[in-house]
Amino acid sequence: MGVTINCDMGESFGPYQLGNDAACMPFVTHVNIACGFHASDPSTMWQTVKEAVKAGVKIGSHPGIADREGFGRRKMDMTRGEVAAAVLYQTGALQAFVGCEGEKLSHIKPHGALFGMAQNNEDVANGIADAALAMDLPVIGFANCVMSDVFAARGVPFACEFYADLDYDDNARQIITRTHHPVSTDDAVSKTLDAVDNGKTVSVSGKEVDVVADSICVHSDTPGALEIAKGVHEALAGRLTTDIV
Amino acid sequence: MGVTINCDMGESFGPYQLGNDAACMPFVTHVNIACGFHASDPSTMWQTVKEAVKAGVKIGSHPGIADREGFGRRKMDMTRGEVAAAVLYQTGALQAFVGCEGEKLSHIKPHGALFGMAQNNEDVANGIADAALAMDLPVIGFANCVMSDVFAARGVPFACEFYADLDYDDNARQIITRTHHPVSTDDAVSKTLDAVDNGKTVSVSGKEVDVVADSICVHSDTPGALEIAKGVHEALAGRLTTDIV
Amino acid sequence: MGVTINCDMGESFGPYQLGNDAACMPFVTHVNIACGFHASDPSTMWQTVKEAVKAGVKIGSHPGIADREGFGRRKMDMTRGEVAAAVLYQTGALQAFVGCEGEKLSHIKPHGALFGMAQNNEDVANGIADAALAMDLPVIGFANCVMSDVFAARGVPFACEFYADLDYDDNARQIITRTHHPVSTDDAVSKTLDAVDNGKTVSVSGKEVDVVADSICVHSDTPGALEIAKGVHEALAGRLTTDIV
Amino acid sequence: MGVTINCDMGESFGPYQLGNDAACMPFVTHVNIACGFHASDPSTMWQTVKEAVKAGVKIGSHPGIADREGFGRRKMDMTRGEVAAAVLYQTGALQAFVGCEGEKLSHIKPHGALFGMAQNNEDVANGIADAALAMDLPVIGFANCVMSDVFAARGVPFACEFYADLDYDDNARQIITRTHHPVSTDDAVSKTLDAVDNGKTVSVSGKEVDVVADSICVHSDTPGALEIAKGVHEALAGRLTTDIV
Repeated sequence: MGVTINCDMGESFGPYQLGNDAACMPFVTHVNIACGFHASDPSTMWQTVKEAVKAGVKIGSHPGIADREGFGRRKMDMTRGEVAAAVLYQTGALQAFVGCEGEKLSHIKPHGALFGMAQNNEDVANGIADAALAMDLPVIGFANCVMSDVFAARGVPFACEFYADLDYDDNARQIITRTHHPVSTDDAVSKTLDAVDNGKTVSVSGKEVDVVADSICVHSDTPGALEIAKGVHEALAGRLTTDIV
Repeated sequence: MGVTINCDMGESFGPYQLGNDAACMPFVTHVNIACGFHASDPSTMWQTVKEAVKAGVKIGSHPGIADREGFGRRKMDMTRGEVAAAVLYQTGALQAFVGCEGEKLSHIKPHGALFGMAQNNEDVANGIADAALAMDLPVIGFANCVMSDVFAARGVPFACEFYADLDYDDNARQIITRTHHPVSTDDAVSKTLDAVDNGKTVSVSGKEVDVVADSICVHSDTPGALEIAKGVHEALAGRLTTDIV
Repeated sequence: MGVTINCDMGESFGPYQLGNDAACMPFVTHVNIACGFHASDPSTMWQTVKEAVKAGVKIGSHPGIADREGFGRRKMDMTRGEVAAAVLYQTGALQAFVGCEGEKLSHIKPHGALFGMAQNNEDVANGIADAALAMDLPVIGFANCVMSDVFAARGVPFACEFYADLDYDDNARQIITRTHHPVSTDDAVSKTLDAVDNGKTVSVSGKEVDVVADSICVHSDTPGALEIAKGVHEALAGRLTTDIV
Repeated sequence: MGVTINCDMGESFGPYQLGNDAACMPFVTHVNIACGFHASDPSTMWQTVKEAVKAGVKIGSHPGIADREGFGRRKMDMTRGEVAAAVLYQTGALQAFVGCEGEKLSHIKPHGALFGMAQNNEDVANGIADAALAMDLPVIGFANCVMSDVFAARGVPFACEFYADLDYDDNARQIITRTHHPVSTDDAVSKTLDAVDNGKTVSVSGKEVDVVADSICVHSDTPGALEIAKGVHEALAGRLTTDIV
């Protein structure tokens, strides 16, 4: 039973650069590529797919809410049907580029507020499950919430992710911010090992809470993302796998 | 050697209705479904795919320029790479819904100004060809122009379409307008038969010009689209095929 | 103390037609013109402004959430600053066209989910108030809710609207749906008179609730909108004013 | 007769940063703020207006084509009416923020391909003129082209700009690229002085061509923009004015 390291990539857009994809690529096992709703555009997606294939990392879709201005980090009311359609659309679009480069998609990881909504909202979780089952892809999700309950009940294969670079609240939920704060590499690595080895992390209030860390997520727009990715990658050497589930 | 009837569909968007897809469906062999750039949205695409599968018609993608306000009918400077990426993105997105419903895409037909630009611009035609070859899909295109030359040279399988509801100029090119004018069913049918049987049509100035009519296109936003589709369908009875090429 | 009749207009977009603006124009005192975020586009806005000026009705902005696909009827998390900026942007854009035609804006009426969010969320209500005070414009709002409390506390002049064509719940709140259901003209008129004369309406569960009806709203996409507007206009003859406050 | 220095600003968008507005602000007399079509968003516009007011520089609108992915640098077919409506919409939107901060707009400067199209296309130039005249604002434009001919004929007050950081072709036209190449400060300064003092520049092929340099433009996304702005500002000390015309 290994662990994976995933990173959201391809979040540049038109003339705008975001993240340091090429540099981070060697230190992850899986990339989640933005699909043009919250970030990215067709040319950026294709280029990012090419880089990922060259680096030999697995590629998943990173579908988000259609809100570029808010980078998909603002919750929006969506029906189950709208969520399923949005995830299918974006994942299919990315699959075209992945297919061009001779590969297959490995997984789906919802982005930002879509991920957050699915942690609490059954309709959103079911919409994601509808899309994942239809496309026969596993999901990178989150433990001990509505999303994991729905996925388990419906037979959606999924891995639970842990954030090396985000804080947690007392309910073991990641604290989402619109821009990511700097985190030291040492802190990120020790948090990661505690999560992977012991299934524990310490919340912002100092409480020890239970987490599941099948996959470690590093955000490419966190200041110091590259160092964090390197540190986590080194700390987990010998335990990494390319299998999401 | 049969002929096909194709119709652009799924061009509604959010609260906005356009065309009369369900009514036209029985009278066509192929539908080209808009993919969310010039028209449509994920929910509309999925619904239209379901209706097409139920009606037993073949489904192609109908990718356009990212310009909803201009309905993809305003030319925009795009590089070959941008065109290829846009066609791949949109076609892949549609493929996800088609796959959900147990079918495969049959073809690609570029929309509006993207189609028009490819008739005259080698880069645009090559971008479409890049996408078509990568996805191993034939294209519905146009005869005797840059597009057909590029497709022929690069081995892209393609059919040439004839417009039952558009006027032609003296160079045998369709005259594109932002909104479609009314056409009588009788005129559409006789134009169609002349094109299919004789490879000829009469331009707006009264000149007889050569055309290729492998596939007859009816626009769903032409006033009287349903009657035209019925008339053309009846007139071509016994000669219809489901093979694009 | 008169009453006004307002109608949301200019909600067409590119090739898509919505509502029956020209026909409804003679039966309202104020139009709220969509500003390009949830509906409309610059050309549609300008055309609608011209028609309103010609008809001699007052023009207000109808700013919405940047969500065309959901027609601004899906709630989205927005900060106070984002709300203020969005209302200022859209209202300023419309003012340019109104100024071109020699007129001044009369008011602001938030659209759809932005209006609904302001009924319950202090930040959203304050964002709207920030914009209204900065532009020195009154607001068409809603009674007995967070929005009216905030506006009253901050000195934002506002009128409360009553919906001739929507149902109410037991808390005297309008029931918002993505598409509007048909309403008989007789029902709309009698509901309107009860609200204007008695400050009362009957909820969907049959309970009599208190309402404030400074302005009667008719939605142009309600089936039968024109007949409803005519009926309400006739029933309020002699009591209509052009002053929002 | 003084000269002005203008810089395009406010081109960040949502999470994406572009340019170094705050640093460049002290070295320009006028800023052209992007208006949400090719770049920027309402919050970014408001923030940029605040910074410009604080720095005491004049503010103009910088309207572009509705093409974020191409940053407004891809030509698109637009009618005169569409151009006028787009310029009015964007300029009005910006005016709302400028008014909030107690100032008035100083001018309009079209962006990218809209500017480039107006150099050659009478309809586009007339659309810009329509908007400028309706809003009673001067335009920063370009000399010896369709745009300047149309503006002169119609009585639109305008200044001609010279690019300190772009190359010129043999027809005295700036060479537009999607991303700007690095330019040395010394080259930019000497080019500027030659243009201002002598009305001359040297084209990429080495030919001396006539230019008009009422206003010097520095692009904030040119590598080294800050140094160039400083150098040009210092070189023109004592000759700067705040009047566009």
